[in-house]
Amino acid sequence: MGETTVRLGLLGCGHVGAALARLVVRHGEIIERRTGVRLEVGAVAVRNLARERDVPLPASVFTHDPHAVVADPGVDLVVEVIGGIEPARELILDALGAGKPVVTANKELLANVGAELFRAAEAAGVDLLFEASVAGGIPLLRPLRESLAGDRIRRVMGIVNGTTNYILSRMTDEGCTFADALAEAQSLGYAERDPTADVEGHDAAAKAAIIASIAFGAKVVAGDVYREGIAELGAETIASASGLGYVVKLLAVAEEHDGAVAVRVHPTLLPRNHPLAAVRDSFNAIFIEADALGELMFYGRGAGGEPTASAVLGDVIDAAKNLVGGARGATVGVLERRPVCPIDEIESQFALQMEVVDRPGVLARIAEQFGRHGVSIKSMQQVGAGDEAHLVFVTHRAREADLRATVHALRDVDVVRRVGSVLRVMGDEG
Amino acid sequence: MGETTVRLGLLGCGHVGAALARLVVRHGEIIERRTGVRLEVGAVAVRNLARERDVPLPASVFTHDPHAVVADPGVDLVVEVIGGIEPARELILDALGAGKPVVTANKELLANVGAELFRAAEAAGVDLLFEASVAGGIPLLRPLRESLAGDRIRRVMGIVNGTTNYILSRMTDEGCTFADALAEAQSLGYAERDPTADVEGHDAAAKAAIIASIAFGAKVVAGDVYREGIAELGAETIASASGLGYVVKLLAVAEEHDGAVAVRVHPTLLPRNHPLAAVRDSFNAIFIEADALGELMFYGRGAGGEPTASAVLGDVIDAAKNLVGGARGATVGVLERRPVCPIDEIESQFALQMEVVDRPGVLARIAEQFGRHGVSIKSMQQVGAGDEAHLVFVTHRAREADLRATVHALRDVDVVRRVGSVLRVMGDEG
Repeated sequence: MGETTVRLGLLGCGHVGAALARLVVRHGEIIERRTGVRLEVGAVAVRNLARERDVPLPASVFTHDPHAVVADPGVDLVVEVIGGIEPARELILDALGAGKPVVTANKELLANVGAELFRAAEAAGVDLLFEASVAGGIPLLRPLRESLAGDRIRRVMGIVNGTTNYILSRMTDEGCTFADALAEAQSLGYAERDPTADVEGHDAAAKAAIIASIAFGAKVVAGDVYREGIAELGAETIASASGLGYVVKLLAVAEEHDGAVAVRVHPTLLPRNHPLAAVRDSFNAIFIEADALGELMFYGRGAGGEPTASAVLGDVIDAAKNLVGGARGATVGVLERRPVCPIDEIESQFALQMEVVDRPGVLARIAEQFGRHGVSIKSMQQVGAGDEAHLVFVTHRAREADLRATVHALRDVDVVRRVGSVLRVMGDEG
Repeated sequence: MGETTVRLGLLGCGHVGAALARLVVRHGEIIERRTGVRLEVGAVAVRNLARERDVPLPASVFTHDPHAVVADPGVDLVVEVIGGIEPARELILDALGAGKPVVTANKELLANVGAELFRAAEAAGVDLLFEASVAGGIPLLRPLRESLAGDRIRRVMGIVNGTTNYILSRMTDEGCTFADALAEAQSLGYAERDPTADVEGHDAAAKAAIIASIAFGAKVVAGDVYREGIAELGAETIASASGLGYVVKLLAVAEEHDGAVAVRVHPTLLPRNHPLAAVRDSFNAIFIEADALGELMFYGRGAGGEPTASAVLGDVIDAAKNLVGGARGATVGVLERRPVCPIDEIESQFALQMEVVDRPGVLARIAEQFGRHGVSIKSMQQVGAGDEAHLVFVTHRAREADLRATVHALRDVDVVRRVGSVLRVMGDEG
């Protein structure tokens, strides 16, 4: 075995692990020709040794002991695709401590104990790469760290959950309800039987935390992320937004405000001609606003065994080349503990739906409440007329706390029958 | 001056060079914090020393001799933003020969003598980076080389010229003619007084050659690229495509066919829901199809001083870190001389507009010609009726040569009054 062979130890062999093993074999020659590095799968830890797997590997490489894979002197580089926090965390720390580079696709782990892992990688002087943890096959973290290294990132907005994007696309295109769209997504295998992690925004929040860490070098964990899901969205809210030229998307948003970092996940109205508005079905996309670069978007498959394995393999090749060349890749370094902006302080534009009594003077009564709380109205449209009028207000940028106080006050105004959905509007500034 | 300071020599100080100098100063601290490397502009070669420049540099760094900048022992890394082939080629070869990494944004140079430069960089063991040469601020070459290193790229389709995309967007959205849209683009500074390089597809062809080189490791020069521009496109062609659910875009396409590489630039019909169809105004985007990853798109500003400078700076930081760390970045390596597929052999779907006499039996006469040349019809639509009928045929995939023979034969069929535009259709396979 020459010096340029790098032997991989796989922790886990589910969809992503198996796809990776197949890619390493299928594209091994191209990889060696392009990079001079020969990759081999040396050991694979699986829970169930008896299960049949569609991977071109001899039975002798499989073991049920992941610790043995990490410790195996025949393993140069560890790929963690088990998921979850323990034992993944411990295994990765052991590998880094033994001077073995680690590639992982584990968003839960990074969104919760990322800073500890980055510190360990830094201390060991070893690569820890995790491109596939945020948006599956879409190259995002490497461009953020490398291509944008000389720029100042202002904001990152992402459609980072394919399940919810599929549901919202169906609701928008077909006018169906959330329940029907979810059932369809489940029948197609796009949504889990228990869809909570997706539809309540937990998955997107974990990814938002990782994005914020990389974009702003700040220590942000999943628990810091303000979160609203899409389960409460009515078909009529989406239809009414559509009538005003907006598309509803579940966005993960990370911004920098005066040194603080604001990170949140919520349904958002985007103007129909915004690049993110055209991202349909289960596709993902990340939209970046940077000082010099302006607007930038990456679009692709955010999940799935093969796309994710392709991203993992990109990291594996990077780490393997560094290992052979005695170099190190771009590191995250030590994350700064920076203030995370509370949701109350964040400014957005808002769209409010309201049912009011249809008679003269009503608008003045409503506008008064906005004005009193320092919220400035950008536009108002009446949808339908008669005894009850359905109004949609879009505000200029306003603090969350002020908007909430406005809504609270509006509920006590006698001409207001009902305050309906309140959604943030992005991509429409100016 | 510590070991971690890297001093840049700039060849040229136009829009991109000046924006780069400003960014190096403005973001110097972030860059040093993120990467540990301190960047300084040590010398700048300009044609006119007397001209005032909005750059935060002392007069002493300016010289009119680019060779002196390359040879300057106070310059560690050379940034070439002069453009054109000579003296840029000679200067870059000198820099590489002297062991100085080079960053360039010069597409003309790379599309013509790229292989020679890559070989020289390889021989010298020095970085030659050129991210900004293809799509300005959009990270493309680094993801192609690194993130997709373990995947097999099938096809790359790009909107890589902002001027023509602006013109086509106006024609599509406002129904105006090519001449009017061009005049508007010129008045806004999006198009040159002599727009030939843009509207005839020369600029896109140079970028297509670079994309093909990186995506497929093949030696492709601008002259290998089949090219059609947009100057002949009528407003009615675009309107009729729109009626059928297509958007017209000027695409640079690089594909691999059985070991050969096919590279071309031409106006193309894309289904309205294709991600590239939503790319408006002067924005650029690159759509990649890869084996494992599936579909991937990068979107952003393809030109402009600041976006391009941001991409150049990403490369500068990469090369500077490698210089300090004694490493080398991803290299292009030696390009293989591979067969470039002649346009006649390339297969596409086609849309043909035709005016025919409106009477029974006409369709059979026309269909016979398609069949005789082995071109299979996918759909036919009649637009308008009366004495003359306007028909649009969309074919299944067919060889260019067969399609051309079909068109030739159709012109001799007496019921065919006129064969109008013949455009390729992409993104609609299956």
